Amino acid sequence: MGKTNKTRRLPKSSATVAKDAPSIILINPQLGENIGMAARAMLNNALGSLRLVAPVHGWPNEHAIKPSAGAEVVLDAVQVFDNTKQAVADLSHVYATTARDRDMTKRVLTARAAANEMRCVIAVGGKPGMIFGRESWGLSNDDVALADTLVTIPMNPAFSSLNLAQAVLLMGYEWFQSGNKTEEVDTRIPKNTRLANKNELIGLFEHLEKELDNCGFLRPPEKRPTMVNNIRNIFQRTNMTEQEVRTFRGIISGLVRHHERK
Amino acid sequence: MGKTNKTRRLPKSSATVAKDAPSIILINPQLGENIGMAARAMLNNALGSLRLVAPVHGWPNEHAIKPSAGAEVVLDAVQVFDNTKQAVADLSHVYATTARDRDMTKRVLTARAAANEMRCVIAVGGKPGMIFGRESWGLSNDDVALADTLVTIPMNPAFSSLNLAQAVLLMGYEWFQSGNKTEEVDTRIPKNTRLANKNELIGLFEHLEKELDNCGFLRPPEKRPTMVNNIRNIFQRTNMTEQEVRTFRGIISGLVRHHERK
Repeated sequence: MGKTNKTRRLPKSSATVAKDAPSIILINPQLGENIGMAARAMLNNALGSLRLVAPVHGWPNEHAIKPSAGAEVVLDAVQVFDNTKQAVADLSHVYATTARDRDMTKRVLTARAAANEMRCVIAVGGKPGMIFGRESWGLSNDDVALADTLVTIPMNPAFSSLNLAQAVLLMGYEWFQSGNKTEEVDTRIPKNTRLANKNELIGLFEHLEKELDNCGFLRPPEKRPTMVNNIRNIFQRTNMTEQEVRTFRGIISGLVRHHERK
Repeated sequence: MGKTNKTRRLPKSSATVAKDAPSIILINPQLGENIGMAARAMLNNALGSLRLVAPVHGWPNEHAIKPSAGAEVVLDAVQVFDNTKQAVADLSHVYATTARDRDMTKRVLTARAAANEMRCVIAVGGKPGMIFGRESWGLSNDDVALADTLVTIPMNPAFSSLNLAQAVLLMGYEWFQSGNKTEEVDTRIPKNTRLANKNELIGLFEHLEKELDNCGFLRPPEKRPTMVNNIRNIFQRTNMTEQEVRTFRGIISGLVRHHERK
């Protein structure tokens, strides 16, 4: 079946890849550069199983090495097959990325839905793979007929052409996101500090309001409550750290001292 | 402020771009190729406003043309600025894509959350933009300080480096998806047919079961109900078109005729 080939060594990347992850199958890829860029895009997304079906210029191909940007763990494990049938033989679910409309009855998923489904396929012991066609003309109808599901990457319909490595990148990206636990919203704060609590923030408010009373800014008295709330609302939106609260109290004191000296 | 430059004409793309969409701001981009590939990735995702801050080799740059793959509408509208402050002057919300950790207090969104938020920003009349740093060293702290929000693209932590155009592609992709209405799950069927209805499918079941009774396959009688249901379940999963149901009934008749002739 697949032969594993060694390629020339690159600056070592210690990146590891997920075991239970879809295979990427490039059918008749022409340019080594595209294979290398696809390998890079795969490793970016923790995909490690790259299969080539009858690569036009054979394998290994040294033009793949530099564009892989160090993704040697992927290139070293490449498997080469004579035809698509052999390349998908051990898989349970095959997804075909194709923009062209086919005169076939076939389920179509977006890239995102396909990524989520592949997680489910793996969870029940299945083995998914994604086939990508040759740079210039995509997948043949015979290849598409071997697939369970078509995958479409929603794009500007007036300008939707992607190169091979970009298509692999976007599919890989969706795969990685579907298993990723990064918080959608987070706040990065420097070490040695933390977000201010309300007691510290109210201390800042009262400090500022006392000085604004002193300099006569919060007049006339009937407008004071509204002015105070409007100013407090500005600071509420800042999500200051306790360090920043102290900085700002220093700013107030600094401005007051300067004013007093005059 | 920004100067609009004409670049050499390419095979014409009639692709139009969305008006209310974020600007992409490349700070000190070095290679024209990367600018061209970024323009292509932008147009793939219906983004049209590309701003360059002090591009290293000036602008226009003819090395950008071929890699743009025909995204002339983006290259033609490029605006060039001397510094980041001028490039973001008319924007209300600036997002900075950066992988490096900064010793700053700053909100962080994933690419997906940032894309969704930019839609909200535009809905209330705001003007968002995304800044991307120079290929080799990314954004300076001064540039990051001009941003409201950091954006992180979740990637394999052991191999997370993206080139400039790939980062633009992924951000653009999330932008496009956030406004895209493609059905997540769809079925593509050929023209001139439609999905079979249950009457047609049950007709197929009964045709098959009659022939299986005739040839003695559905025995012993006490096992018949389970065997019938198991066989029906296989066909239920196929989502056949009415054409395919007719094809399959032809297959049954064909096999029976062949058997009868023997």
